[in-house]
Amino acid sequence: MTETTEPLSQYDAETAVELLEDGRFSAHVSDRWNIGDNPNGGYLTSIALRALRHLGGHQDPVSVTTHFLRPGLGNQPGEVHASIVRSGRSVTTGRATLVQEGKARIEVIAAMGDLSGTSGHDVDLTIAPPDDMPPLDDCVARSGLEQGVTLFIAERVDLRIRPDMSIAGASKDAEMQAWIRFADQRRPDTLAAVMFSDAFAPSIFTRLGRVGWVPTIELTVHVRRRPAEGWMMGRFVTEDLHDGRLVEDGWLWDSKGTLVARSRQLAMLLPGADTSA
Amino acid sequence: MTETTEPLSQYDAETAVELLEDGRFSAHVSDRWNIGDNPNGGYLTSIALRALRHLGGHQDPVSVTTHFLRPGLGNQPGEVHASIVRSGRSVTTGRATLVQEGKARIEVIAAMGDLSGTSGHDVDLTIAPPDDMPPLDDCVARSGLEQGVTLFIAERVDLRIRPDMSIAGASKDAEMQAWIRFADQRRPDTLAAVMFSDAFAPSIFTRLGRVGWVPTIELTVHVRRRPAEGWMMGRFVTEDLHDGRLVEDGWLWDSKGTLVARSRQLAMLLPGADTSA
Repeated sequence: MTETTEPLSQYDAETAVELLEDGRFSAHVSDRWNIGDNPNGGYLTSIALRALRHLGGHQDPVSVTTHFLRPGLGNQPGEVHASIVRSGRSVTTGRATLVQEGKARIEVIAAMGDLSGTSGHDVDLTIAPPDDMPPLDDCVARSGLEQGVTLFIAERVDLRIRPDMSIAGASKDAEMQAWIRFADQRRPDTLAAVMFSDAFAPSIFTRLGRVGWVPTIELTVHVRRRPAEGWMMGRFVTEDLHDGRLVEDGWLWDSKGTLVARSRQLAMLLPGADTSA
Repeated sequence: MTETTEPLSQYDAETAVELLEDGRFSAHVSDRWNIGDNPNGGYLTSIALRALRHLGGHQDPVSVTTHFLRPGLGNQPGEVHASIVRSGRSVTTGRATLVQEGKARIEVIAAMGDLSGTSGHDVDLTIAPPDDMPPLDDCVARSGLEQGVTLFIAERVDLRIRPDMSIAGASKDAEMQAWIRFADQRRPDTLAAVMFSDAFAPSIFTRLGRVGWVPTIELTVHVRRRPAEGWMMGRFVTEDLHDGRLVEDGWLWDSKGTLVARSRQLAMLLPGADTSA
């Protein structure tokens, strides 16, 4: 009998890391997840999380914080320097730095856990998805033209935006809702939920217009449950923008309408952003 | 002329650090900020932030994430090991570890900035405080008895809870609103906003009853503006509890009703918690 191996998904292949020694891993940062010139932050974070999965016993990222120090370099090699901060029964805490051309690009700290759901607690609270989200076929693909930036990531991530939120500057609210899945239909998991939490068009764009790249200073994702197979749905809102810095909140639900992840990021509105709309 | 020096506030005195060498600082962890046996997490984070303020040029914590590895030790010395990850024009990113008895207690990563508010951006969004918060005199002091734990921190932080949210297990919502200030009336600043974001009674207590200590796995605070003098007001909500892990969201406003900070924490409901209410 010959063993057959499933071909790796794009996400798995392009976030792969290989252990070198002493917590150092080699990686290749793809340019297929770029927003304009810069690799997407959720994509870069995924590479770092792969290293932490290697080192620790827990596989689900339950709390992940990434500080974006410098833009990553697409289509360039990189190294992840990772270490375990503390191993516990229910949580492994680790940190990881993605380095390219000798400079730290992102700094990650993560609590990894087990989200298979086995505790004895019988109290459960959760947040329901919006009840007026249109079906997939009524939504529209994310447009680089509308956002004012080239979206190489659209080859990797299929994003279908709620039509009334798809036009730059057309809304008084800074809110974005869309369906999301991998373009090659890879099944979502908890690592993908972190990546998806940073893969939507910035919600400020619906209010302010073609804002271009909105660089993130810091992103924290809390993953709450393992997602079911199929399209996921996300909602992202900016309720606070002051002195050029905004806080964007996100929610991701799976195809069964179960809350999978919540995210928050602190990002910058660049001075050149076209906010005349 | 003799110089006169203002006596240090309790908060300033009990979070002070002294530079030793190579990014190491000595500290003394007080037990006057304890929740039961354990120093409050926002208090411990403040000590780490003092070290980062020493090392970097930026003084306002704009994004602070703390991972709680082990309980701190009240009335014991400690060391903070801090380093700058990247210095930039608008943001300094640093990390800090609080060590006691040779073991890392908390791990902090923070982006420090300048919240004096000088950018040319003219778009401003913000979140208003609840419009039905009762005045201070109608609110009630936080009760250790109600929470099921001894609150040494009540000597340091004056918390006045909205009466309908002050009774364990009396509400179907997990929500907490209260006024807060330092007991010695020290003026609030951005560092204090981080501390206050972790100083309220857990919001899950209003729904589940005497839950005791709710240990935090990870806390992230985004500070948005510098607070005005006077009492601050906070709102904390738990909308997601699953498999014994809960996410609590927080908002802090200053005495003028301006949003100062938003926080989120991932915390654990201990198996022994009395949720029979």
